[in-house]
Amino acid sequence: MIFGSDNMAGASPAVLQAIVQANAGEQPSYGADVWCEQAEQQISQVFQAPARVFFVSTGTVANSLALSALTPPWGGVLCQRDAHVLADESSAPEFFSGGARLLGLDPVNGKVAPESISRALASAGHPPHNVVPRALSITQANELGLVYTPEEVHELASLAHRHGLKVHMDGARFANALASLGCHPADITWRAGVDVLCLGASKNGALMAEAIVFFDPSLAQDFAYRLKRAGQMAAKARFFGAQFCAWLHDDHWLALARQANDVAGQLGVALQALPGTRLVWPVQANEVFAVMPARLAQVLRSQGAVFYDWPEHALPAHEALQHEEKLVRFVTSFASTCEQVDDLVAAARCS
Amino acid sequence: MIFGSDNMAGASPAVLQAIVQANAGEQPSYGADVWCEQAEQQISQVFQAPARVFFVSTGTVANSLALSALTPPWGGVLCQRDAHVLADESSAPEFFSGGARLLGLDPVNGKVAPESISRALASAGHPPHNVVPRALSITQANELGLVYTPEEVHELASLAHRHGLKVHMDGARFANALASLGCHPADITWRAGVDVLCLGASKNGALMAEAIVFFDPSLAQDFAYRLKRAGQMAAKARFFGAQFCAWLHDDHWLALARQANDVAGQLGVALQALPGTRLVWPVQANEVFAVMPARLAQVLRSQGAVFYDWPEHALPAHEALQHEEKLVRFVTSFASTCEQVDDLVAAARCS
Amino acid sequence: MIFGSDNMAGASPAVLQAIVQANAGEQPSYGADVWCEQAEQQISQVFQAPARVFFVSTGTVANSLALSALTPPWGGVLCQRDAHVLADESSAPEFFSGGARLLGLDPVNGKVAPESISRALASAGHPPHNVVPRALSITQANELGLVYTPEEVHELASLAHRHGLKVHMDGARFANALASLGCHPADITWRAGVDVLCLGASKNGALMAEAIVFFDPSLAQDFAYRLKRAGQMAAKARFFGAQFCAWLHDDHWLALARQANDVAGQLGVALQALPGTRLVWPVQANEVFAVMPARLAQVLRSQGAVFYDWPEHALPAHEALQHEEKLVRFVTSFASTCEQVDDLVAAARCS
Amino acid sequence: MIFGSDNMAGASPAVLQAIVQANAGEQPSYGADVWCEQAEQQISQVFQAPARVFFVSTGTVANSLALSALTPPWGGVLCQRDAHVLADESSAPEFFSGGARLLGLDPVNGKVAPESISRALASAGHPPHNVVPRALSITQANELGLVYTPEEVHELASLAHRHGLKVHMDGARFANALASLGCHPADITWRAGVDVLCLGASKNGALMAEAIVFFDPSLAQDFAYRLKRAGQMAAKARFFGAQFCAWLHDDHWLALARQANDVAGQLGVALQALPGTRLVWPVQANEVFAVMPARLAQVLRSQGAVFYDWPEHALPAHEALQHEEKLVRFVTSFASTCEQVDDLVAAARCS
Repeated sequence: MIFGSDNMAGASPAVLQAIVQANAGEQPSYGADVWCEQAEQQISQVFQAPARVFFVSTGTVANSLALSALTPPWGGVLCQRDAHVLADESSAPEFFSGGARLLGLDPVNGKVAPESISRALASAGHPPHNVVPRALSITQANELGLVYTPEEVHELASLAHRHGLKVHMDGARFANALASLGCHPADITWRAGVDVLCLGASKNGALMAEAIVFFDPSLAQDFAYRLKRAGQMAAKARFFGAQFCAWLHDDHWLALARQANDVAGQLGVALQALPGTRLVWPVQANEVFAVMPARLAQVLRSQGAVFYDWPEHALPAHEALQHEEKLVRFVTSFASTCEQVDDLVAAARCS
Repeated sequence: MIFGSDNMAGASPAVLQAIVQANAGEQPSYGADVWCEQAEQQISQVFQAPARVFFVSTGTVANSLALSALTPPWGGVLCQRDAHVLADESSAPEFFSGGARLLGLDPVNGKVAPESISRALASAGHPPHNVVPRALSITQANELGLVYTPEEVHELASLAHRHGLKVHMDGARFANALASLGCHPADITWRAGVDVLCLGASKNGALMAEAIVFFDPSLAQDFAYRLKRAGQMAAKARFFGAQFCAWLHDDHWLALARQANDVAGQLGVALQALPGTRLVWPVQANEVFAVMPARLAQVLRSQGAVFYDWPEHALPAHEALQHEEKLVRFVTSFASTCEQVDDLVAAARCS
Repeated sequence: MIFGSDNMAGASPAVLQAIVQANAGEQPSYGADVWCEQAEQQISQVFQAPARVFFVSTGTVANSLALSALTPPWGGVLCQRDAHVLADESSAPEFFSGGARLLGLDPVNGKVAPESISRALASAGHPPHNVVPRALSITQANELGLVYTPEEVHELASLAHRHGLKVHMDGARFANALASLGCHPADITWRAGVDVLCLGASKNGALMAEAIVFFDPSLAQDFAYRLKRAGQMAAKARFFGAQFCAWLHDDHWLALARQANDVAGQLGVALQALPGTRLVWPVQANEVFAVMPARLAQVLRSQGAVFYDWPEHALPAHEALQHEEKLVRFVTSFASTCEQVDDLVAAARCS
Repeated sequence: MIFGSDNMAGASPAVLQAIVQANAGEQPSYGADVWCEQAEQQISQVFQAPARVFFVSTGTVANSLALSALTPPWGGVLCQRDAHVLADESSAPEFFSGGARLLGLDPVNGKVAPESISRALASAGHPPHNVVPRALSITQANELGLVYTPEEVHELASLAHRHGLKVHMDGARFANALASLGCHPADITWRAGVDVLCLGASKNGALMAEAIVFFDPSLAQDFAYRLKRAGQMAAKARFFGAQFCAWLHDDHWLALARQANDVAGQLGVALQALPGTRLVWPVQANEVFAVMPARLAQVLRSQGAVFYDWPEHALPAHEALQHEEKLVRFVTSFASTCEQVDDLVAAARCS
């Protein structure tokens, strides 16, 4: 009953096998190996676009480095107020960008909305005295477990582009969103106006591998320097390449994501049936947010369930915790199973 | 005949096995897993000191982050003019430190010498107008393949400490130095005055794993923030921990280093016997620098040997390349074999 | 009728005279001159505390450099959401601090309130993943023209200190606040818990002179390096010193501030009497915020009045602009006169 | 007998008068005033080129901000090893550029030479691993008191441009160089290939005023943001503008520089006639470097002469101090007089 985070699982057997395979023999270092080359090709094929790809070790590095290519140090980055880049990555975005500022937007129905962007742009003030937005960052699937449709991405990206903003997508759970939407990966990225995607594999079956995917190659012009300077030009980069090769091969990434999403869906249904428990947002990917009695949360944990309390301020404006209630988050991974949901339901009965 | 770099090999079977093992099941993320915990303990045991340890993905990150904890952004870091931190890590040290300056010292017999440090300190000028050295960085084994004895480390570190400088050791090839010296690891680190060691496993049998080892815990006070902000708090950090566990277990790291050193020794002997070829520095670890006829280098490469040209300015002041000569570098790894040396000698005969 | 900003006036005759006087003869450079020395002494006398003082050229530099001494690059700075440091100084705070983050608080009755600080601290989350507040910045008089009483400063600073935060005061209009309160300068600074004050003279009768005043000397330890590195160690710093000497001499600064405040008071009364016009906040220093018919604002400007539109989002939560209304800001300076208020009233009659 | 630095004098009467004049009345803030506008026009006229001009408070800010517009944070800046930007401005260049690296060149006959640039470019190594030079910085007149002829500037700048480097000129003593050469200011700047000039007035008769002059306007594109973010958008910028207006008016700057140069010339002759004293470099502007008996230096100082010891490593490679000798530097300013030289000679007789 480990629902703390999808980063608590290891790698899928197929991904692990690729690491073992790639380990054999000598390879040129710093990303010039055959695995990185093949992984870049696979990504271009999957997205049906000639992407420039850079591999890094964590999602924080991926997001921060990517954003640093989209905004000068005096620019701003619009994002949801509870976006991972703003709320959970320390001041890494400021560090990598040389001091750019993240500008948090209040969500509308759990997501970045065009009207929030417009309002932020309208109040940006007088350059150079004020920080002017230069980029928009959206998370797919987002931090509240919600998924942007192709139309939504397109609308947000178009608005951003009209005002000269570049568009970044934090895709730490991109595969989960894609599996949920059932669309083509291009439909929610470059075709919808995304300039750079941080494609995260670590949370969905890889051990440690993130890809920064530039659909607009002009933005990647000096990126190798950024990568090196950030200490992300790994000597044995083959390890990154190999993970992506296996992950993308034969839609393995989608199979992994579907498993996580399916269990999340069942978990949502199960949670809603628990006494005094309600879901805050619909379950669209692999995260479930529920309000439940504090007592119930305690019981579940005493039975071995792992999940996090979530800050009340993440709730929609019209909702509030009642007396003795808690907001909690459950996350499923490729390693989650229906049995774990059953166990959770059984655990709830102990209360 | 791959002698390009010790980072062209993969991981040793034992290290790889540990990755596979560690992959099983769920683990807390961000370094709170059992593998990282055990690895930290093993490092403390090996060094016989209660070290604070942080795991990162590359040597560049390790060095730059460690230095950032030793000097303020307005300080200087003394190091050999051809130190990896100065010559091969882009401006990563400036990036991570917020703008500190590396101050290159001319080597004496291939190494940092006390008199060079004294001279640099004497000419440091008038603070705050000038950059004042705050740290000393030495590389063990160093970039010319030479090894500092415990006495040498102690002399350099004492001098540094007397002037208020902290001491950093770039240990990308620490195991090679240790195997060469046959001393206790403490003798060339904390007992000799090293404040922080970047213990590199990637070049010697790991896939991707570096440890920043603080012997002075007060220097590590805010280091978790630095780590996170640099995007180095890996979600599935267990992978780092597992590599170090296997690497250190049962002196595996020393066995790997010894193999590399032994082959390097044989390579040195073999190269010296080639026509018109001489070694520039004694072979003390796993790097061999030779001056050879350009024609010979060409022949070797045509037969499949991989090794790098090295810039002439790395030569000692009293040496110079003669007409049609080249300075070249050979590096051996744990995966190198005597057969490869034999093959090289055979290849030379084709000229 | 120039009410655009108090920085549109020049220097007072006395301050200008001091510049002329200080110009004569040779002086040691970089702040070692007699004028800087004397100015530092005068500041210590005025505040009855042995302050460490550094002179800089602008308020933005003063605030950003001061904050950089209070927070590490991974820390946060709590401030009002419309604080000058957050809203009007580009990303200078991020630049000088190396990437620290400003955390905007919604004002309560126009000011930072203890409950806002408590809420921000409670939601600061899990270090090192989240940005943890390390400093509090309050503006005296603040950006809405309001003044913190000694008790209010004390309450905010105590709360901050209890949570390990340092306290910064942006005193661009400190003299106006002091003249308004009629208290001792120590009462709203170090005695109330302020660790560092940015004492601005430029907006109140100087030409270009700001002082960073450290009441806690331990915070100033490395500050000379910060100053130099920021290019603020002026060769002919005597010019800064001389301005402060004259400005502080014989309570000249307070006389200048009183004139500005008095005219602002009269302006407030006059504006309130204009048709359809109301004040948003009480007039406590030298700024007047009014809601007036857009048509009236237009008439006033057509008659030569200079004042700024202010963004609607600065209004208190319970207030909103009605149809055809505008929020506008008037600022008075030491050079403002009652006649200018009379002229404004006369201009309004032209509508 | 104050020969310590040209920044120990105040402002010339004409410049001071302009400050007084400009002080009257209200002016738009942040550089939109009439004085800044006029100063920018005068600079364009003087240089016969449509320059973009930004005014800042110190030479360190001018140089560092200008360089930050010429190189990315991962680039290098070639400059003489004793250039002020490298040797006397702390790590300000790193700070403002976000971490770019200054690469010191050994001087040839006291100046940057084409062969030094070529050598540095040749050894720049493998991007992105190594720091690649992106800019060249030369100082006119340079830190050894030498002046680059138009031909020399052209040769250096052409070489730089051929390799994709931008060219920066540190003109803290530009007027002295110009007065010495007697050429047109365009001949040693844009016509010779200089992309941006830091035109210093502070050392030559202004109180505090430096202009960053972009001859290539494309380089100035985002510069207003850099200026603001560095806290250099002064509220009452009129003060900077006014100084430049008076300074440039009617060749006042050249008259001031000529006076300094003339006295330096006489000082050189006088010093050479002192027992045991020799000049190290020819006197071409307003600085005189001499080797003299330590005893003589002591006598001169005991009689009230002010001048600095200079580090021995600044000497040409073929020169060395003999026993009991010192390298010393004398600088003259617009306020220096022949009488001071006579006094110095008289003082020497007291030995």
